[in-house]
Amino acid sequence: MRVGVLTGGGDCPGLNAVIRGIVRKGVQEYGYDFTGFKDGWRGPLEGATVRLDIPAVRGILPRGGTILGSSRTNPLKAENGIRRVKENLAKQEVDALIVIGGEDTLGVAARLNDEYGVPCVGVPKTIDNDLSGTDYTFGFDTAVGIATEAIDRLHTTAESHMRVLVVEVMGRHAGWIALHSGLAGGANVILIPEQPFDLEQVCSWVTSRFKASYAPIVVVAEGALPKDGDAVLKDGTLDSFGHVRLSGVGEWLAKEIEKRTGKEARTTVLGHVQRGGTPSAFDRWLATRFGLHAIDAVRDGDFGKMVALRGTDIVRVPIAEATARLKTVDPALYSEVSVFFG
Amino acid sequence: MRVGVLTGGGDCPGLNAVIRGIVRKGVQEYGYDFTGFKDGWRGPLEGATVRLDIPAVRGILPRGGTILGSSRTNPLKAENGIRRVKENLAKQEVDALIVIGGEDTLGVAARLNDEYGVPCVGVPKTIDNDLSGTDYTFGFDTAVGIATEAIDRLHTTAESHMRVLVVEVMGRHAGWIALHSGLAGGANVILIPEQPFDLEQVCSWVTSRFKASYAPIVVVAEGALPKDGDAVLKDGTLDSFGHVRLSGVGEWLAKEIEKRTGKEARTTVLGHVQRGGTPSAFDRWLATRFGLHAIDAVRDGDFGKMVALRGTDIVRVPIAEATARLKTVDPALYSEVSVFFG
Amino acid sequence: MRVGVLTGGGDCPGLNAVIRGIVRKGVQEYGYDFTGFKDGWRGPLEGATVRLDIPAVRGILPRGGTILGSSRTNPLKAENGIRRVKENLAKQEVDALIVIGGEDTLGVAARLNDEYGVPCVGVPKTIDNDLSGTDYTFGFDTAVGIATEAIDRLHTTAESHMRVLVVEVMGRHAGWIALHSGLAGGANVILIPEQPFDLEQVCSWVTSRFKASYAPIVVVAEGALPKDGDAVLKDGTLDSFGHVRLSGVGEWLAKEIEKRTGKEARTTVLGHVQRGGTPSAFDRWLATRFGLHAIDAVRDGDFGKMVALRGTDIVRVPIAEATARLKTVDPALYSEVSVFFG
Amino acid sequence: MRVGVLTGGGDCPGLNAVIRGIVRKGVQEYGYDFTGFKDGWRGPLEGATVRLDIPAVRGILPRGGTILGSSRTNPLKAENGIRRVKENLAKQEVDALIVIGGEDTLGVAARLNDEYGVPCVGVPKTIDNDLSGTDYTFGFDTAVGIATEAIDRLHTTAESHMRVLVVEVMGRHAGWIALHSGLAGGANVILIPEQPFDLEQVCSWVTSRFKASYAPIVVVAEGALPKDGDAVLKDGTLDSFGHVRLSGVGEWLAKEIEKRTGKEARTTVLGHVQRGGTPSAFDRWLATRFGLHAIDAVRDGDFGKMVALRGTDIVRVPIAEATARLKTVDPALYSEVSVFFG
Repeated sequence: MRVGVLTGGGDCPGLNAVIRGIVRKGVQEYGYDFTGFKDGWRGPLEGATVRLDIPAVRGILPRGGTILGSSRTNPLKAENGIRRVKENLAKQEVDALIVIGGEDTLGVAARLNDEYGVPCVGVPKTIDNDLSGTDYTFGFDTAVGIATEAIDRLHTTAESHMRVLVVEVMGRHAGWIALHSGLAGGANVILIPEQPFDLEQVCSWVTSRFKASYAPIVVVAEGALPKDGDAVLKDGTLDSFGHVRLSGVGEWLAKEIEKRTGKEARTTVLGHVQRGGTPSAFDRWLATRFGLHAIDAVRDGDFGKMVALRGTDIVRVPIAEATARLKTVDPALYSEVSVFFG
Repeated sequence: MRVGVLTGGGDCPGLNAVIRGIVRKGVQEYGYDFTGFKDGWRGPLEGATVRLDIPAVRGILPRGGTILGSSRTNPLKAENGIRRVKENLAKQEVDALIVIGGEDTLGVAARLNDEYGVPCVGVPKTIDNDLSGTDYTFGFDTAVGIATEAIDRLHTTAESHMRVLVVEVMGRHAGWIALHSGLAGGANVILIPEQPFDLEQVCSWVTSRFKASYAPIVVVAEGALPKDGDAVLKDGTLDSFGHVRLSGVGEWLAKEIEKRTGKEARTTVLGHVQRGGTPSAFDRWLATRFGLHAIDAVRDGDFGKMVALRGTDIVRVPIAEATARLKTVDPALYSEVSVFFG
Repeated sequence: MRVGVLTGGGDCPGLNAVIRGIVRKGVQEYGYDFTGFKDGWRGPLEGATVRLDIPAVRGILPRGGTILGSSRTNPLKAENGIRRVKENLAKQEVDALIVIGGEDTLGVAARLNDEYGVPCVGVPKTIDNDLSGTDYTFGFDTAVGIATEAIDRLHTTAESHMRVLVVEVMGRHAGWIALHSGLAGGANVILIPEQPFDLEQVCSWVTSRFKASYAPIVVVAEGALPKDGDAVLKDGTLDSFGHVRLSGVGEWLAKEIEKRTGKEARTTVLGHVQRGGTPSAFDRWLATRFGLHAIDAVRDGDFGKMVALRGTDIVRVPIAEATARLKTVDPALYSEVSVFFG
Repeated sequence: MRVGVLTGGGDCPGLNAVIRGIVRKGVQEYGYDFTGFKDGWRGPLEGATVRLDIPAVRGILPRGGTILGSSRTNPLKAENGIRRVKENLAKQEVDALIVIGGEDTLGVAARLNDEYGVPCVGVPKTIDNDLSGTDYTFGFDTAVGIATEAIDRLHTTAESHMRVLVVEVMGRHAGWIALHSGLAGGANVILIPEQPFDLEQVCSWVTSRFKASYAPIVVVAEGALPKDGDAVLKDGTLDSFGHVRLSGVGEWLAKEIEKRTGKEARTTVLGHVQRGGTPSAFDRWLATRFGLHAIDAVRDGDFGKMVALRGTDIVRVPIAEATARLKTVDPALYSEVSVFFG
């Protein structure tokens, strides 16, 4: 039995822990051989491989990133993509593929498995925690921890200068990082993509915080938008939204708050530090167990499934189902947390 | 409505976050008044109280310990204990009591509620994570994080000197901290109270690690015992087991490993650093939500219940049930992790 | 004897440690009374004070920011500034003033002391480490530690995606933070304000790193400028340089590198997290000793002096001298570090 | 030119940074070749070597421990030790030796250089900071940081239970770690080997802290001793002093404090975590510069010298002088810090 492994999409703390779990159990308990595919789906598409055995996974547990490399290559969009993937898997004599990735990467796995007969097992990965079917994805706890530590630090700066500090955290479509780090960091306002915000309400929270002689911290997910988003977009400051982040929602918000409340406001965009470096203990635990259970699914021939966390158990759910829709923040949960606003 | 709050047993990161959650929501949303009882059950027993209102809970979210103080006082064992507790609650005009604690502290709450008509809501607290009825207790993630960081550091020392490093972590009756931190820290042997260990097996794992040119880390829960525990106890080195830890299982194990394998071994006993200081982001999240849901249970008049984590939801379970038996490590989970031994 | 204390300029980890050192020794050993002035020079200018005694400094050692507040108010630029400051000091019966601040704040102290007879003792403060007369300023070590940790994290992201990561750190006029954190973080290029950089050289280092199959980290001080700075400024991307940082040198550099090398590049601007939060152990040590020695200078009547670090000793130097010119990075030191570039 | 490198004595964060600095500059700027000797002086004694070139030092900057291994082997005490060392150096065609170590390891280098004509350059290494001739040794800042973080955590435990917490830190002969971490951690008592302590005085500080409604933290260096040490030693509890630490000074002190003050006391022995793991930014900076300057000394043919920190400069001092006597804590400095006791 030869198993291929690939990691796709943005890097995420815990990827190496998954790979190590897969290989250690696969080799030691099942006697499998492994082929590492380089840079996500680019590997099977172009036949780019790396050696993957016990020595290759030594010492990688605490290391961020992925020893396999990653990319956003999508074989479904490449010419003859499916055919080339199948040919390369055959050439490598790979019997099954473990695919570690987020919505896009796993979406390819679901179709390859369900429509093209390539036996795939999925492992959910995203620091954004927005994959359905699993309580948490690994990487998320690390990202929340880093953001919380940053917010802890920013409180004293805000207080010393009686300024508003706006902290922009990751989360394009889901507010999980903002919600968790904002709550844990004692933020006074938390803004998430799921709930378009009312700028007047934000300013009133900011003002009430100052009235109590404290300085407010506003945590905003990069994908959060004001209720009248159109107007905002028109003034051109949001057009570079996304990766480049030259004038993201954080900067825009700080300027609006200054204008409307007369208080100084500063922005910190946490950026890539949220996704790099050593995983938290929780993420190492979760990622390792995902790896151990993914190779079990291969052994069981239980393909088309993704390993997932339910409570403290690792279960298997159909990949297609897990990637069908984003897991966003429930309004009730946002409302629960809002008791701390203002 | 006036609600009493107390924290009992060993201190635990997140206690203050629970208290803040209770008070913020209780005051802001329900208009309740609060009475803080000092030092666990000693407060209601002796009528020792502290002011508990919005200003009292400002800034306590990231702080370890408990602003209410703690103790192991048990009113069930005090003369006229129940009567004195009821008198003092009446004197303070307290209508309901939120009890934050572990097995012992909550056990008292269960009996007071069920047998003596004192309306109690429980919040589970233990860094050991050994309370039934909840997926996790707050404080556990922080403890695991600290232990993991220590193990990360010890690897390089072990490698540089080609020594065995034995790390003794907390966990008198349950191996959760050892299991999680041992896995996350890449330990080569993990020993837990639930599974009496075979010293020969331990030494063989140690030896095989050296053969692969690496130095082994052995993580041992303070309550772990060798299979032939009697023999061990006879040589007198384990008699001060527990708090004083003059010659705990870690020291004993290091000496035995040295004797049997001929390799140098050193011990580190992590001790109280595992339970103090600022809570992790996860524990702040969990503890805060426990606080919010505990005050909701009071408002609902749902007494005799403990808030608990199930997946990502906070639910309510009977306190009596949750404290009836310890939640220990399942043999199947231990076996899952053992793929990394040796 | 009554001593006034103020903290001016940007906040900086260790300010509270200085204040605690001053007050603990002043009260306990010399029996002095203290008056805290609020928000830097605004305090003496407007007569804004806060209580400053032993209880006020309890527990502040590990806390970032300043319990006295800070501002950039300059009495030399205010109408009748000097007269108002002297009147308010007289009204508060303050016999001497300890001024904790950077170049600007201390510059005022030097003139007040030397020209207007207000007895002042200075304590150097800046995370930028660019004050003459002292080996290090407190806050710098903390800032370097935070930046180094961020760089550590970014390495794995860079490697996983084979991207250039540009990290913009603080340092408007001096490259100390960039130099120390860049070296400690294993950066492949470090750019500082003291040495205008050659974009072609930067790109060649970037390219050579990729050739060795690694991904480069470029650390750039916010005040660094390319050799042909004029051209850069003309294209308009650098005009919001400084606080707002909408398109700081980091963003500009990443775009230029992408354009010239064809490699993906991303920017992280660390921003305010570098100056907030708990001070490092080194900064707590240095700041506390500065406080102890500042009150000794007051007792000795040694005014017009600033405490300073020389090796492991705390000495006194004329404030005027220490603020006369910026301490910038010596070309020889930059050259020493450049062995790691590329 | 071929240069040998060895690391001796206890491991220490920063060793790898020194090695990297030596090799990067030696190869890139001077075109030297290198031979790594394994396990300190055991390497030259037994001819045990490891490859040491640019690839070997990739990625080691942030890693604790030493890639060369370490030991306490002393060729001066081995049969024909000197002769064997010289023979093996000749066999390896090594022209000069860079010796990274503490008092013992460097002492050998001094004699080999001065008496036996082996050209040696020394690099001072000890987390204890007790080497003369240098302001600081690398590893010390990391150890102090870890100890300070532990003390920070222990404060909340002490307060919650109103207990004394005794923290035993490293420092057999010098109290530097205790002094710096105790001050930085806000300890209420600091005990160091240089100043035999009066148990009554300690208990009076402890009691006065409780009277102010706070719980005391006592930081004690492992080598600290009570004034009437003889009496103490007689009761047998101190006889395993040192490595094994079954009943070190910390345990003994906690018991004595309990007995004399009637307050509960607990001990935490930090142990090996103080010397392992990733170095602090300061230690990476210092260690790297030591490496760069050590290879410069080789190039200059300036043998018998040790690189040392003076202020912010790296200088060279005779090894023999630097190892002639221990650098201990000056009574004046201890007295300066004692303002915070009680």
